[in-house]
Amino acid sequence: MTPSPQTRPLPPGWQPVALAHASRLVNHGPTVLVTTQQGARRNVMAAAWSMPVEFTPPRIAVVVDKSTHTRTLLEASGHFALCLPPAALADLTWRVGQASGRDVDKFAQHAIAWHDGPVLGLPLVEGCVAAMELRRLPEPHVEAAYDTVFGEVVWAAADPRVFAQGRWSFHDGNADLHTLHHLGGGTFAVPSRTVQGR
Amino acid sequence: MTPSPQTRPLPPGWQPVALAHASRLVNHGPTVLVTTQQGARRNVMAAAWSMPVEFTPPRIAVVVDKSTHTRTLLEASGHFALCLPPAALADLTWRVGQASGRDVDKFAQHAIAWHDGPVLGLPLVEGCVAAMELRRLPEPHVEAAYDTVFGEVVWAAADPRVFAQGRWSFHDGNADLHTLHHLGGGTFAVPSRTVQGR
Repeated sequence: MTPSPQTRPLPPGWQPVALAHASRLVNHGPTVLVTTQQGARRNVMAAAWSMPVEFTPPRIAVVVDKSTHTRTLLEASGHFALCLPPAALADLTWRVGQASGRDVDKFAQHAIAWHDGPVLGLPLVEGCVAAMELRRLPEPHVEAAYDTVFGEVVWAAADPRVFAQGRWSFHDGNADLHTLHHLGGGTFAVPSRTVQGR
Repeated sequence: MTPSPQTRPLPPGWQPVALAHASRLVNHGPTVLVTTQQGARRNVMAAAWSMPVEFTPPRIAVVVDKSTHTRTLLEASGHFALCLPPAALADLTWRVGQASGRDVDKFAQHAIAWHDGPVLGLPLVEGCVAAMELRRLPEPHVEAAYDTVFGEVVWAAADPRVFAQGRWSFHDGNADLHTLHHLGGGTFAVPSRTVQGR
């Protein structure tokens, strides 16, 4: 039997993100890891397709194909988490998007360490730069027609080296912490510079 | 009376994008300009919140607040376009997100030149690096509950200097053509480097 990865307390470096700022975490279109858990079963997949739909309350839409194990666990539990992998996790992000977790524990397979989410107990992937726990807002029609799942954020946190006071800060000094934006085929764009509109 | 901006044919430099590749244009989470037209009335707004929901047929969701003039024209016409502004248009992108087009022609106000879309005749903003025309897929419940509008792409094109064969190519040589990803307050991240997951 594959040994279970270690479950750990929240990393002391993370800081809570006010719920009013939670939608900002995905405002710029990063690829996310969607994690789910029901009883002893848990899973993780990569999703390039998500977006905020509301700031207050913080609500987010994410596309999770109806054939996926994640969708099964999400609908059974009513909960899911979104974790934001940085550039340093590009390989892991690509790999967990390549196979289903229906027949394999991807946390064990890829030696992924996680932290139990403080509100819903969802697995938060170690090394990510932000994470949030969400309750599903059931929308059976659009879930069926467009694989689009809506959720409301109940807790969020981020690495203050790259997100603080409700804003991302990307610069050369924190390049390994920049978010990933999937272009296709495992190639990710990284937002390593910023411009200011005036 | 403010003179109307010039209407022009499609720029010769643009190349059609196969519909099977259209969703890739927004796969990485860029901020888009949403344009609408009904009769002689047209409008443009910036939207940070959009995502693909399907590759084939190419379908995209975008958040358009129900209070906006864009939403009025979109529902009346059943059509909308998404144009992708590059870094060189950061100021324009920020400005058209700051006021409603209900009482002002933003194309005239900001001296925006456009091209008539070849299928639906929607205004495609000059200087953008990609554009697509969409038909609304009416979903009254989620449009009301989450301001989320679904559309199916019927035509797409892109600047081959930065998008070709279904892929974005961001490098130092085309920095002015990189897409914008809104972080908040008019600050945009720009995907100026890429990493390859393995």
